[in-house]
Amino acid sequence: MVGSVEVSPVEANDRAKATVDDVEPLPVEFYPLETSDPADLGTTNGVGSVGGKAEGPRAGDGRKREIVLGRNVHTMSLEVTEPEADDEVTGDREAYMAGVLARYRKSLIERTRNHLGYPYNLDFDYGALGQLQHFSINNLGDPFIESNYGVHSRQFEVGVLDWFARLWELEKNEYWGYITNCGTEGNLHGILVGREVFPDGILYASRESHYSVFKAARMYRMGCIKVNTLTSGEIDCADFRTKLLQNKDKPAIINVNIGTTVKGAVDDLDLVIKTLEETGFGRDRFYIHCDGALFGLMMPFVKRAPKVSFKKPIGSVSVSGHKFVGCPMPCGVQITRLEHINTLSRNVEYLASRDATIMGSRNGHAPIFLWYTLNRKGYKGFQKEVQKCLRNAHYLKDRLHAAGIGAMLNELSSTVVFERPHDEEFIRKWQLACQGNIAHVVVMPNIDIEKLDNFTNELIEKREIWFQDGKAQAPCIAEEIGEESCMCTRHK
Amino acid sequence: MVGSVEVSPVEANDRAKATVDDVEPLPVEFYPLETSDPADLGTTNGVGSVGGKAEGPRAGDGRKREIVLGRNVHTMSLEVTEPEADDEVTGDREAYMAGVLARYRKSLIERTRNHLGYPYNLDFDYGALGQLQHFSINNLGDPFIESNYGVHSRQFEVGVLDWFARLWELEKNEYWGYITNCGTEGNLHGILVGREVFPDGILYASRESHYSVFKAARMYRMGCIKVNTLTSGEIDCADFRTKLLQNKDKPAIINVNIGTTVKGAVDDLDLVIKTLEETGFGRDRFYIHCDGALFGLMMPFVKRAPKVSFKKPIGSVSVSGHKFVGCPMPCGVQITRLEHINTLSRNVEYLASRDATIMGSRNGHAPIFLWYTLNRKGYKGFQKEVQKCLRNAHYLKDRLHAAGIGAMLNELSSTVVFERPHDEEFIRKWQLACQGNIAHVVVMPNIDIEKLDNFTNELIEKREIWFQDGKAQAPCIAEEIGEESCMCTRHK
Repeated sequence: MVGSVEVSPVEANDRAKATVDDVEPLPVEFYPLETSDPADLGTTNGVGSVGGKAEGPRAGDGRKREIVLGRNVHTMSLEVTEPEADDEVTGDREAYMAGVLARYRKSLIERTRNHLGYPYNLDFDYGALGQLQHFSINNLGDPFIESNYGVHSRQFEVGVLDWFARLWELEKNEYWGYITNCGTEGNLHGILVGREVFPDGILYASRESHYSVFKAARMYRMGCIKVNTLTSGEIDCADFRTKLLQNKDKPAIINVNIGTTVKGAVDDLDLVIKTLEETGFGRDRFYIHCDGALFGLMMPFVKRAPKVSFKKPIGSVSVSGHKFVGCPMPCGVQITRLEHINTLSRNVEYLASRDATIMGSRNGHAPIFLWYTLNRKGYKGFQKEVQKCLRNAHYLKDRLHAAGIGAMLNELSSTVVFERPHDEEFIRKWQLACQGNIAHVVVMPNIDIEKLDNFTNELIEKREIWFQDGKAQAPCIAEEIGEESCMCTRHK
Repeated sequence: MVGSVEVSPVEANDRAKATVDDVEPLPVEFYPLETSDPADLGTTNGVGSVGGKAEGPRAGDGRKREIVLGRNVHTMSLEVTEPEADDEVTGDREAYMAGVLARYRKSLIERTRNHLGYPYNLDFDYGALGQLQHFSINNLGDPFIESNYGVHSRQFEVGVLDWFARLWELEKNEYWGYITNCGTEGNLHGILVGREVFPDGILYASRESHYSVFKAARMYRMGCIKVNTLTSGEIDCADFRTKLLQNKDKPAIINVNIGTTVKGAVDDLDLVIKTLEETGFGRDRFYIHCDGALFGLMMPFVKRAPKVSFKKPIGSVSVSGHKFVGCPMPCGVQITRLEHINTLSRNVEYLASRDATIMGSRNGHAPIFLWYTLNRKGYKGFQKEVQKCLRNAHYLKDRLHAAGIGAMLNELSSTVVFERPHDEEFIRKWQLACQGNIAHVVVMPNIDIEKLDNFTNELIEKREIWFQDGKAQAPCIAEEIGEESCMCTRHK
């Protein structure tokens, strides 16, 4: 059921019923909208077909961008070689490795400087924590139950979890949570909790939800229904209502996006809850997981933003730690209600701990990074940074509009969506995340006006070259961002 | 089906058939052997029951060790506090945090020194890599397909993967793999690949398999049959044969342990394959995942050890990176056949990468740590360390025997199993992993003779106190390690 092109409500229901019996070994096209020619779907039998080629979306000029499956790319890899017998004497090996690392470091500086497309705050200084790199810190198992392995950082982890539980208004003795390896682990956990609470529940998620949500459905063998979205990227609650009414016999597990991946759209949590109630789904028949990947941490600091709060009937919230906070490695925070976790957990005596996390061994450095930043910046520090990001995002959108480039910025977001640049080299240089005809810049705390100016100026310059003599033209992106934001020749 | 007390073959078959329809929301006791009184199982309705208390195994003196579920432990946590307005001026906050970190570092040194129980090599020096901690390195998506995010370490990752593929004899153009967050992720991935290859396959795993294997079965809604083990901890292939024959209508997905968690037992891969063939399971009807958590990396360097090799009909191998190699944070390596991965993967254009990993964002530092150590030590370096570990493990076993303490050491292992010490404080000090009446020491490269002597001397001393006047006595562990290894009063 994952990735189906269009799930008619009846079909969806059948599928939901059929899910646990029927298994579809071949995944099909993930983002159906991206394939311009529907016939492609038929001919390739889906993107992931064995040994097949992935048919990407058309690039701006109509050429297809191909992602080749079934081939290992070894062009750039750094081979591991066996040391020579005399390496320790000559020091050749140390010198070689130091050289590799120095070159690598230089490339990281360069790439960090030019980065615009992913929601990672690259501005951090954890120098004070360098002293801890010598330790194998592992919070294996549950954060709240000490295991016998002593080299852990649970005291930092629980401090961070408390901070987030307070942010989302859940009492200390009523929450459970842990620091995950990434946003995906948070979604996998939240949806698993939902499934354990409602074993025959159907998963509802807007089609602009993160791909990990649909991966979860597939992994967990859950019925899954994709809900349409508005132009903004928010879930379309009219469509949600229709689909709920057609599946009233099964509990509902809903993924609510607090900032979608591509457009930074925030689903209207209150309207989702209202829709559930109006269609007869009582609180004992639905579970809501909030995927707050990036914006779950920014929204509490935005004035007038609707609140993500456990005072509302939600089951779990996840957020990434390496995004707005910034962290050398991916990580995330998952908070859920303690009552749910006993459904999921089992005891594993080997650890002298219960097994309620997805992963067993867990990175003990990540909690210290988060603890360090939260302590240094505090609520007020984050508030300032959020305001700066939103201000800078507006600046970017305005500059693009002034240059006649179609762009959209959701009210509660710092993600600026615009036409996909015509040239892959430009995309790679600025490391833009793209989907179909659109690209985005996520304005994070490390992105200042100067960087945005450099980017915009270069884009304007390049567009003049790409589009001179009318050989090519800016794509129409009215479908993605709305007619009022599009500035193609037709909508200008 | 996960964690069932005893699966009779017929029942197992029924369960396997029933799995996809029936869901068991309440997990039951995981290690049935650990509950001394079978009535406990009935009264507590399984360990994980909502709001219930976990009944741990009896400690040596007959007191029960309890793990309390449903309560958040905040006694030790380090609260995150809001900075004062003048913190930047006074420097108070910086000073406070520096103090916390310095104390924490001191405790890590202490705990690292005393550690014996978990298979982590704590002896590493990654000082040369400290310069990279300033970067947010993320290998999101597939290792072999570059995403648009430029700050990655795929060149190191693929170098490491090549090294492991060569170790396990799979050609560069025939393998796929990635660096995981831990051993659990490797098992989750291997078993998921198996399930996608055989959607209606039944998972077979010995009851001494790592708990993540049974977690996978539960997550993936797979039929799962536990196979008995020999005293050594190896899978009992006679029992395996019986259970296969009773489930001939379904393909078999088998988890083979290359070193079990508790006893370090190595399942006989060749006998497992022979058993499959003799019971009529052709190569198109089984999938073998090898859980090589610790020993998958050690065994290739042990003379006379049976080989883990893709020249045999296996589907995947996983190994932990933070165990024998040593790494500041948990990580692992997963290698599988490229042909299987297309079954699993789907394209996700957002990353310009395919989605075949469990996690989306992936720690880019771990591959560099592994690359660094592999390059420095090489095959020969590892060989020396493995030999040292095995030698030291024999030394420990001999010393325990000489002191009249029952102990077992499997031929291909560096895990010494012995009676669970009578005192929880002693267990915590040496950070011993325990299960029921047994504990173990995993002899890793950072554990030398001196440390083992200190440990043994202290154990002997303490035993004299614990067992003086006959108030208590050493437990009989013949069931766990065999009569010939047990040295309780009856078997001495």
